[in-house]
Amino acid sequence: MSGEHDLIARIRRRVGSPPAWVSIGIGDDAAVIEPERGAQIVITTDSLVEDVHFSRRLTPLDAVGEKALAVNLSDLAAMGASPRACLLTLAVPDGVHSDEIDQLTGGLIELASRAGAPLVGGNVTRSPGPLMVDVTALGSVRPRRVLRRSGGRAGDELFVTGQLGAAAAGLAALQSGEDRSRLDIDFSECIRRYERPEARLKCGIVVGRRQAATAAIDLSDGLADGVHHIAAESGLGAVIDAGDVPIHAGASEWARRHGGDALGLALGGGEDYELLFAVSRRGKRNFLAAVRQSGDVMVTRIGRLRAEPGVWIDRDGRLEPLGTGFVHF
Amino acid sequence: MSGEHDLIARIRRRVGSPPAWVSIGIGDDAAVIEPERGAQIVITTDSLVEDVHFSRRLTPLDAVGEKALAVNLSDLAAMGASPRACLLTLAVPDGVHSDEIDQLTGGLIELASRAGAPLVGGNVTRSPGPLMVDVTALGSVRPRRVLRRSGGRAGDELFVTGQLGAAAAGLAALQSGEDRSRLDIDFSECIRRYERPEARLKCGIVVGRRQAATAAIDLSDGLADGVHHIAAESGLGAVIDAGDVPIHAGASEWARRHGGDALGLALGGGEDYELLFAVSRRGKRNFLAAVRQSGDVMVTRIGRLRAEPGVWIDRDGRLEPLGTGFVHF
Repeated sequence: MSGEHDLIARIRRRVGSPPAWVSIGIGDDAAVIEPERGAQIVITTDSLVEDVHFSRRLTPLDAVGEKALAVNLSDLAAMGASPRACLLTLAVPDGVHSDEIDQLTGGLIELASRAGAPLVGGNVTRSPGPLMVDVTALGSVRPRRVLRRSGGRAGDELFVTGQLGAAAAGLAALQSGEDRSRLDIDFSECIRRYERPEARLKCGIVVGRRQAATAAIDLSDGLADGVHHIAAESGLGAVIDAGDVPIHAGASEWARRHGGDALGLALGGGEDYELLFAVSRRGKRNFLAAVRQSGDVMVTRIGRLRAEPGVWIDRDGRLEPLGTGFVHF
Repeated sequence: MSGEHDLIARIRRRVGSPPAWVSIGIGDDAAVIEPERGAQIVITTDSLVEDVHFSRRLTPLDAVGEKALAVNLSDLAAMGASPRACLLTLAVPDGVHSDEIDQLTGGLIELASRAGAPLVGGNVTRSPGPLMVDVTALGSVRPRRVLRRSGGRAGDELFVTGQLGAAAAGLAALQSGEDRSRLDIDFSECIRRYERPEARLKCGIVVGRRQAATAAIDLSDGLADGVHHIAAESGLGAVIDAGDVPIHAGASEWARRHGGDALGLALGGGEDYELLFAVSRRGKRNFLAAVRQSGDVMVTRIGRLRAEPGVWIDRDGRLEPLGTGFVHF
């Protein structure tokens, strides 16, 4: 218990004084935050569990802390919301040193500060099993600028940010046991994408602000899963064009060397934390302008929503059902 | 993963349609909630970890779900905040059946509905270790009605709700391995208090609304810990009158039978989730009226804050330092 109090005191010092909208930060029964005028509250939570989502052997703990927040920021981005604050719950096994916990919280606090989502509270407990890192993120969005999964309409085009499959290839590279310093640059980049995904915050916020998409989701479980969700929640079907899926060079290279399937990594690998948008034909110009406005994010049109049910992948004119999860061809 | 989707679908059906202030509930990237006009956002998180905070062998899972929310509602109560919503993160070990998870979520959803804090989102993951239940609660409070730990002033009297030591005696009774049906009524009540603590929501809200206390905290880690926190955060010392601490009859009986110390259970046992208030002398009448207004909650004056540093317990006129944690005399 005194360890817990020390830890909280150290975190509190490290966080420093919070921005004006935080009335009460760490150190009371709960945190108190001023809502943004005219905006709604957006709230999401996600966790990283040792030996399920990360391995202490393979990934430095500052990256674990950073990623635990990043995956939540990605959910805010997919709603078009601006980050306001975050909370951290840690369940810590015996034998984890306090400087390791400092690394973890340091990674989180650094990203929290960059993203404008100060750490305002949380909870530390002992774990008789794995290290667990649970983050709740709070955001803010104006009512008519919320991006939902369910707003897609038949005929909308589907756009995805960035390139896919990098995180899956990065994980595979990590698990291969090869020395990091000997991996070539594509794989190093893939590992970075796996360990320190960047939430597409600005892109989500600008697209929401300009009401430039009819639906959005973040790709935590892969492109196929994201397309299924948008289609299902919008009551529609979808077709993905296999040849248009933007595959990261590292994923292609990994597949080439190891006899795997790069498209499979891109569709089913997950953890890329890119955003998938549905965009009406009339809104396309506005959407592309929004993307340009949000920095050098690339977007690629990868398919469309349609009234006929079912989610399909078009491979050279032949439609095949698109499964979710890790897809092998 | 399909298990996870099924589980979320079942939870979503069970929660039903949310109240008007929930714009987006379960099923999108994040939940969206309308803030209460003129109010601030209060947010807190707490978790129950198997074999640290509960044992599946000893406690039914619906009680675990209920308690996981109750301990968070207690934090809201200590801030004077009204509940608005909650989120649930579950880390589920292999071998836990879906009907067991239904029991757990059922207990939480039932309390969430009673408390006006609908379940709006969360996250389910596999655990390679213990069952973990993490809840985040969102509340609402008007700026000048927030109860802090830090507002106490020298000369304020300390009041506590309810009777203390019941939860600690309940846990001891559970751990004794005696058949529940053979325990007498005091111990059954103690077990109920341990397993299904009731957050003093109405009391906290009314005291906050009437600005009837200068400081407040909930007693998750015992009375001694709570007094230390209020004193430290207010920059003061405190004296507790040993003879005035309201000890639950079950705690006294447990101590009598097992040669323990009932006052120790009350001071250090924790998990009673009663509220501790600091009340100015001028505000005492207002405070007692607020308590009466909030139902049949008993409150007891147990000590006072003072300028001299240190936290003491007065035993028949002799001051002894008051430690935190489990206290033995």
